[in-house]
Amino acid sequence: MKIKLVLTDIDGVWTDGGMYYDQQGNELKKFNTSDSAGVLFCRLLNLPVGIVTGEETDIVKRRGKKLKMDYVFQGVKDKLKLVLDICAQLGITLEEVAYIGDDINDIKLMEKVGFAGSPANAPNYVKKFAHVVTTNKGGDGAFREFVESLLKNEKQLEHVLEKYLNG
Amino acid sequence: MKIKLVLTDIDGVWTDGGMYYDQQGNELKKFNTSDSAGVLFCRLLNLPVGIVTGEETDIVKRRGKKLKMDYVFQGVKDKLKLVLDICAQLGITLEEVAYIGDDINDIKLMEKVGFAGSPANAPNYVKKFAHVVTTNKGGDGAFREFVESLLKNEKQLEHVLEKYLNG
Amino acid sequence: MKIKLVLTDIDGVWTDGGMYYDQQGNELKKFNTSDSAGVLFCRLLNLPVGIVTGEETDIVKRRGKKLKMDYVFQGVKDKLKLVLDICAQLGITLEEVAYIGDDINDIKLMEKVGFAGSPANAPNYVKKFAHVVTTNKGGDGAFREFVESLLKNEKQLEHVLEKYLNG
Amino acid sequence: MKIKLVLTDIDGVWTDGGMYYDQQGNELKKFNTSDSAGVLFCRLLNLPVGIVTGEETDIVKRRGKKLKMDYVFQGVKDKLKLVLDICAQLGITLEEVAYIGDDINDIKLMEKVGFAGSPANAPNYVKKFAHVVTTNKGGDGAFREFVESLLKNEKQLEHVLEKYLNG
Repeated sequence: MKIKLVLTDIDGVWTDGGMYYDQQGNELKKFNTSDSAGVLFCRLLNLPVGIVTGEETDIVKRRGKKLKMDYVFQGVKDKLKLVLDICAQLGITLEEVAYIGDDINDIKLMEKVGFAGSPANAPNYVKKFAHVVTTNKGGDGAFREFVESLLKNEKQLEHVLEKYLNG
Repeated sequence: MKIKLVLTDIDGVWTDGGMYYDQQGNELKKFNTSDSAGVLFCRLLNLPVGIVTGEETDIVKRRGKKLKMDYVFQGVKDKLKLVLDICAQLGITLEEVAYIGDDINDIKLMEKVGFAGSPANAPNYVKKFAHVVTTNKGGDGAFREFVESLLKNEKQLEHVLEKYLNG
Repeated sequence: MKIKLVLTDIDGVWTDGGMYYDQQGNELKKFNTSDSAGVLFCRLLNLPVGIVTGEETDIVKRRGKKLKMDYVFQGVKDKLKLVLDICAQLGITLEEVAYIGDDINDIKLMEKVGFAGSPANAPNYVKKFAHVVTTNKGGDGAFREFVESLLKNEKQLEHVLEKYLNG
Repeated sequence: MKIKLVLTDIDGVWTDGGMYYDQQGNELKKFNTSDSAGVLFCRLLNLPVGIVTGEETDIVKRRGKKLKMDYVFQGVKDKLKLVLDICAQLGITLEEVAYIGDDINDIKLMEKVGFAGSPANAPNYVKKFAHVVTTNKGGDGAFREFVESLLKNEKQLEHVLEKYLNG
């Protein structure tokens, strides 16, 4: 496969952008179990998967752990800089990275990676940097659709489904 | 009736797949009261109803108890194997089981049961194993619609509504 | 006005039917502030407003109190019987009651009241007993729309809006 | 710029009107991270931004703080009167204020400000006082769209996006 690393934003991609605040300092995010198959498909292909988000919460830490994500980077101010560092460590190029994001702090990274995605709900001035715009909105399975789109491109989707069902 | 047992997945069927995480290790699922009539219709026909899910939470245990479900099987790795065991215990065949699921871990069971359903939001590679695809998405009453569809097939829906209203 | 009392179901009318369960025995319902104007319009016309629901939660008790509802009846097994009792106490007839409900336990009451409503999401076998079906779904302002529809019928909507803005 | 101050309602604008009640006296609102870019755009243009809401919760206080809002006015009975006071303090006129609201308690203020907005979900008798009705509903980024619409009017949107990406 051309792509060696799959990275994803969280708010607006794994969620609909919703941030639930309560009266006592607690906060919630709503994930969609549908996206967990996207992570599973990558794992079946030995493709590492990571989260890159500007926010910093225990919520995302826990979700990353539940899904056995390879990387969880939170509180990231400059996403492009971070991903350049990761690439250097892994000995891969930005051309070998897939990334899905939905907002202005994703643009600089989206411009440089080999396969960039945005969910349906991203603003047009973000979507124009995406190679693929998912039909699903963030929180409705946009990440899974992004992974499936990547695997279709690389003729791997049928293979991974068979691998799942027969293994 | 041909069908002797109604089984259902939870995430993506009774819910929209949403998993709400907070900052303190708590988690929520959003059920729809509309589905409770699906359970009630089965009970009025003495048709046992059960949950079969890969996840394991107190959330589902409590929902199953509230609705007086006959079976709640959680943390199920191999759904087909579990349902074969249940069938053996009840002395029924897979042909006499109805099951609704929405994702890849439901496919093997859906292939074998007598009446398989999927909610509108399931991927096409899952829906193709369903005898009926509900117009409702998971969390919007897909389970109730699945039961109503089953009862229509067996010419029991009018009967059960009359039984409810007159009994 | 012909109608002397406005009554409403909660789940599926003031909410989208959603019941949020957590891991610790807690539960949530999502109301819509839009419906609070429906209650306010009734109050400006000295029209009493009440809740009649089969469920029993502190959630609804608190919401009823916040909106200063005249009546909050919970855990109601037979809605028609309860409303007959209320009518007897108030010296009014079922013809003078407006009620909006969305499911099978609302049918018997809807059949008898002077003005019955259902939200867009109710099953057809419930909606057929409604004088008005709101374009909004439950939780999207169906109760407010029901009240506005009632006030339009009685040529009171313009009046109550002016009363609000000028008083 | 003609506009010197951007003000916004919360419930029904930053949220879909949803008020989540639990069994223990707690309450939640669901914000959308998309709207935070609206606040950021204003800050990049040195345009003060504030909240004006009739409700009073820690939820909104915390959200305002997280987004570094210039003003958070809660529990406001008469929004027009409050904004007149703010204008006097800032030495600006109502013509220099932008405000987005969605319900009857917003009408009197919307009538007077220089740039009034409503989200798609507002009633027609509120929307008729808006200079711009957003295509997004409250909670889906209506506030951000309102700010973008304002900045487009003032030929500042391209400028602020460039400023964000290059600064």
